[in-house]
Amino acid sequence: MANEAGSALDQLSINVIRGLAVDAVETAKSGHPGMPMGAAPMAHVLWTRFLRFDPRDPHWPDRDRFVLSAGHGSMLLYALLHLTGYELPMEELRAFRQWDSRTPGHPEHGWTPGVETTTGPLGQGFGNAVGMALAERWLAATYNRPGHEIVDHRTYAIASDGDLMEGVQSEAASLAGHLGLGRLTVLYDANRISIDGSTDLAYTEDAALRFQAYGWHVTDADGNDTASIAAALEAARQEADRPSLIVTRTNIGYGAPTKQDTADAHGAPLGAEEAAQAKDRLGLPDEMFWVPPEVRAHMSRVASGGAARAAWQARFDAYRAEHPELAASFEAGARGELPEGWQRALPAFETGRKMATREASGAVISALAPVVTHLVGGSADLMESNNAAIPGEPALSREHPGARKIHFGVREHGMGAILNGMALHGGVQPFGATFLIFSDYMRPAIRLAALMELPVTYVFTHDSIGLGEDGPTHQPVEQLMSLRLIPNLRVLRPADATETAEAWRIALERRDGPTALALTRQKLPVLDRSTATPSVAEGVARGAYVLSDGIADGVDGPRAVILIGTGSEVHLCLAAQALLDGEGIAARVVSMPSLELFEAQPSPYRESILPSTLTARVVVEAGARRGWQGVAGPHGEVLGLDRFGASAPGDRVMRELGFTAELVAARARASIARATLAGAGSLT
Amino acid sequence: MANEAGSALDQLSINVIRGLAVDAVETAKSGHPGMPMGAAPMAHVLWTRFLRFDPRDPHWPDRDRFVLSAGHGSMLLYALLHLTGYELPMEELRAFRQWDSRTPGHPEHGWTPGVETTTGPLGQGFGNAVGMALAERWLAATYNRPGHEIVDHRTYAIASDGDLMEGVQSEAASLAGHLGLGRLTVLYDANRISIDGSTDLAYTEDAALRFQAYGWHVTDADGNDTASIAAALEAARQEADRPSLIVTRTNIGYGAPTKQDTADAHGAPLGAEEAAQAKDRLGLPDEMFWVPPEVRAHMSRVASGGAARAAWQARFDAYRAEHPELAASFEAGARGELPEGWQRALPAFETGRKMATREASGAVISALAPVVTHLVGGSADLMESNNAAIPGEPALSREHPGARKIHFGVREHGMGAILNGMALHGGVQPFGATFLIFSDYMRPAIRLAALMELPVTYVFTHDSIGLGEDGPTHQPVEQLMSLRLIPNLRVLRPADATETAEAWRIALERRDGPTALALTRQKLPVLDRSTATPSVAEGVARGAYVLSDGIADGVDGPRAVILIGTGSEVHLCLAAQALLDGEGIAARVVSMPSLELFEAQPSPYRESILPSTLTARVVVEAGARRGWQGVAGPHGEVLGLDRFGASAPGDRVMRELGFTAELVAARARASIARATLAGAGSLT
Repeated sequence: MANEAGSALDQLSINVIRGLAVDAVETAKSGHPGMPMGAAPMAHVLWTRFLRFDPRDPHWPDRDRFVLSAGHGSMLLYALLHLTGYELPMEELRAFRQWDSRTPGHPEHGWTPGVETTTGPLGQGFGNAVGMALAERWLAATYNRPGHEIVDHRTYAIASDGDLMEGVQSEAASLAGHLGLGRLTVLYDANRISIDGSTDLAYTEDAALRFQAYGWHVTDADGNDTASIAAALEAARQEADRPSLIVTRTNIGYGAPTKQDTADAHGAPLGAEEAAQAKDRLGLPDEMFWVPPEVRAHMSRVASGGAARAAWQARFDAYRAEHPELAASFEAGARGELPEGWQRALPAFETGRKMATREASGAVISALAPVVTHLVGGSADLMESNNAAIPGEPALSREHPGARKIHFGVREHGMGAILNGMALHGGVQPFGATFLIFSDYMRPAIRLAALMELPVTYVFTHDSIGLGEDGPTHQPVEQLMSLRLIPNLRVLRPADATETAEAWRIALERRDGPTALALTRQKLPVLDRSTATPSVAEGVARGAYVLSDGIADGVDGPRAVILIGTGSEVHLCLAAQALLDGEGIAARVVSMPSLELFEAQPSPYRESILPSTLTARVVVEAGARRGWQGVAGPHGEVLGLDRFGASAPGDRVMRELGFTAELVAARARASIARATLAGAGSLT
Repeated sequence: MANEAGSALDQLSINVIRGLAVDAVETAKSGHPGMPMGAAPMAHVLWTRFLRFDPRDPHWPDRDRFVLSAGHGSMLLYALLHLTGYELPMEELRAFRQWDSRTPGHPEHGWTPGVETTTGPLGQGFGNAVGMALAERWLAATYNRPGHEIVDHRTYAIASDGDLMEGVQSEAASLAGHLGLGRLTVLYDANRISIDGSTDLAYTEDAALRFQAYGWHVTDADGNDTASIAAALEAARQEADRPSLIVTRTNIGYGAPTKQDTADAHGAPLGAEEAAQAKDRLGLPDEMFWVPPEVRAHMSRVASGGAARAAWQARFDAYRAEHPELAASFEAGARGELPEGWQRALPAFETGRKMATREASGAVISALAPVVTHLVGGSADLMESNNAAIPGEPALSREHPGARKIHFGVREHGMGAILNGMALHGGVQPFGATFLIFSDYMRPAIRLAALMELPVTYVFTHDSIGLGEDGPTHQPVEQLMSLRLIPNLRVLRPADATETAEAWRIALERRDGPTALALTRQKLPVLDRSTATPSVAEGVARGAYVLSDGIADGVDGPRAVILIGTGSEVHLCLAAQALLDGEGIAARVVSMPSLELFEAQPSPYRESILPSTLTARVVVEAGARRGWQGVAGPHGEVLGLDRFGASAPGDRVMRELGFTAELVAARARASIARATLAGAGSLT
């Protein structure tokens, strides 16, 4: 594929990319010109000689994936997309970093065609690339058949010094080395400059040696020499058993007369004079956004990419002829579809049986695995505690590349970024598990899943102080509400096994964002739902429902108070309801597995569950109180936590910190009194 | 210090430690016996031959620091504390993991004497140890004088396979190698077993090589051979210029007949039979919590530790005689005291001057630095953007070990753990800076600072969508409220430069927990406070105050609505107040820099700011809406965000997402209408 003939045109193309980055940043008066100027040669070699893609079909499943982990260099990517023929016209480049343009400050997946992932927060793209390579290998192992290599692509990333300082990158790199992801190649843009100045200020490790320690194939290249870059990329392609890191020595702000190799080229426009001189030195005319026709023709991949995609389609058609079921399964997976009727595999649970919701989740995974065959996931070293193992599966490894059980190691953040990469790649339905407390470790990756609208499922067990002896370092308090704060993340905290199955249903049906399941360590009885309104399936999907209306059940009479619980605390509400019943106080119990889903319901539904006239209310959740005031209302109480937990057996901790039926009942009486005083309690 | 004579007694002591761990976990029916059983030899050698401490004075400033980063092995630490003579009697060991005992599931700093840091979440303790070693070297460089080595101690940690998988450890290790912290020694308990089973499942990197890549001095030791361990520790002590990693090969659950070297020994009691057999194999009698007098005598460090401390005290007295001011400064720093009258150095800002609150924060740091001489901190590669540099200081480095400006690199999580270690060590007043969005990367460390009640200050700049072009990956939305959810973390979002100075005052005066400052990128005018009630100093300290009462200012008449803003949105409220004034609607503007501080005020103060009779309210914050309902009340509105931001110039993003004076005024009118309808608006 090498193309030495075009070296003058190559050089011109590289400089045109640099010029576009300089001009866009100058025009926006904001942005990062230095990275694109330094990395243009490696990007050009990669995109014109190695990367296989069809600009007119950005979703072609067998395309190579490209991740710009150093997302601040977004203009590099936009220039490449524009020049190779994606739907990104010049007016978009001229509108860099402006409202509603397709060229936001950092690349945004789902917004700009050809952008494989949203990057900017450093280290994340690196982890995404590992996830993509993992998904590719899994799909190849699962779907390819002798003579039919329908999954046969590679993952490339460009990462910066900053990416290589982030811990999430270390975690993902260690796992990639362990797994031997030979089709992953990372070009390390080693320009030795970060925002604060020389990396000598804080970063003097031997990164090449570090990656050797992870088991990577490490080479280097002169980032200003296209032949050197091409040779390194070719060597990486030849390496089948190890991921490759190419330490590519570059010059940030290449061509800028005074700012090259300085932090001044990093995150601000060069300034009119420096920009003009830089373009002059690069042999570019004094014209903004200049692209000569020969560069456009040279860089377009519309014809060659279209041909590659068509050839693949022909191969896929042949595959389909021979393996129709596999082909259908592959295509459904690529479209993000679940097998017809998969919901019938969801287990039912016997009323009264005691089981932790984490166990119920494990039962759901076990039941779904044979049907949802592209369900792939695992745990950050808590496989059994999280009940996250797909039964009968070996651990995913070099030897078992098509296994569905992933041991992520004690690497929660890496897991989060890798799950995102798997979801971005497509073809797999990924999930990952850890203790709820350690959702904090992976929060930046969760946020990006939400921002990118990725269908990732998080299995977060040990979801409250009820976990007991491990104590405050392991007991979540603020995690539930802080996850609910992330836009487009859906949090579900089921009250028992039955709600857990429904929560999984909702998680897997969702295609436009991630779902977090918060599950107990402690056992809970499967609830009797003979008086539930609406059904549990509808009720969980709507976020909340009436589990029981207390003594006057079935009679359309007034209630004195509403007890609203989530997860294990629903059982406390039921116990309190029984106490209040004994005093002649009718209490409605509402199970609210998802505050966000409930809030999204139309007003009549919300009114049917929480009548606005009934303001005596107690919300019970063994988590932070803040954020529940809206549900509790002006006369309501929130029984929650404003402190950290403590180490002791779980039931003792619950009791000591106020989670008892007696206290719920006392709060109910107080709320009734307050509502009555305000003249609002008797309005039903 | 080597003590080969006592080898039989050494071995007995080691087995007694193992027996205590086995018995405590059996008694609690919960815990992690395997790690203490495997690591007992290294812990014994370290604590009896190397570690210098006085069990009767756990706060002696020149003691060596010991960090059990593998906090799940807490019984190892409790056994050591008990046997060496700390105030941790046997009844506490018997009450392992029980309510109110001094022996919680994971070690808790401030709760159990001798526990230097709270550990359990993996990787954190490692980072703390780096921070402690950094603080030690800084203090030595700052306070030692020829002939007076009053700061002369070391930091030791025991870390597990799990610690070495976490990214926060990678970040901290890379920086420790860069800085050449020669007095830091980490014993890596390489037992090759994690919770899921063999580390071969997920972790096959060459950790020794990785640490060499970071610039560490790496050796290995046989973890069952005290001579081998002692030799490695001695070699580490001889190494002055590099931190040391001792790869110590151990057997998890050493001595357990069937569970040794298996994951079954990791996180659950051995079981009665296995425990009995293990103790038998270790030569221990069939007696719970058995400690023979000769082991107690052998391990006690009361006499030797007391003598060491007394010798230091004599040396310190000599130092004081020669350098009285330095001695006083050292002692004040060790007590966490700030210099008398330091507040007078806080700058004042001219009304009307436009400056970003990040700039104001930089001005405060500059003004305080000459007075608060132990203020030490920096940024995660955003020194200028965060205005975090102490002026005139070189970067902290091997060459400048007493410098006060720390370049943490792009390592937010490592920074968080290191700041905790610095605060735990004492003698320095640490702060760290990054963009507010990246508080997510360091959240587990922030939580531990709050749990440990450490006086760390976080400088979080670029605090809203107002940062503009960098787009949704860099624009905080949920971060403000999710930080407010962490118990004992105080969040301050000042509205202008004057409030910023007060926020710094509050942060530095606080001794029982961390403070996060949320600061703008965009410029804001310094507010006129001629009508503020109470004063800005009292108002910020109380979390909220009345900035202006609108048209009827100075007249004790009724207000129609309260506009409550934080940070930059206070200015929007003032603009909306002017609009409403024009319509004859009197609007009170409340600046609420700290929701938590305001909530903690006595009811009369809260009532004076937000009269409960005045229910027409608008809360304005360019962040998540969830969590503000309590302040807004039943008729109020929350103008916030339920979505991610967007890339465009900051004022455009603000406008497009609804943060305009016109919209605030419209929401005010809507709230007035609602309150009036409810008959609640006219009660003033």
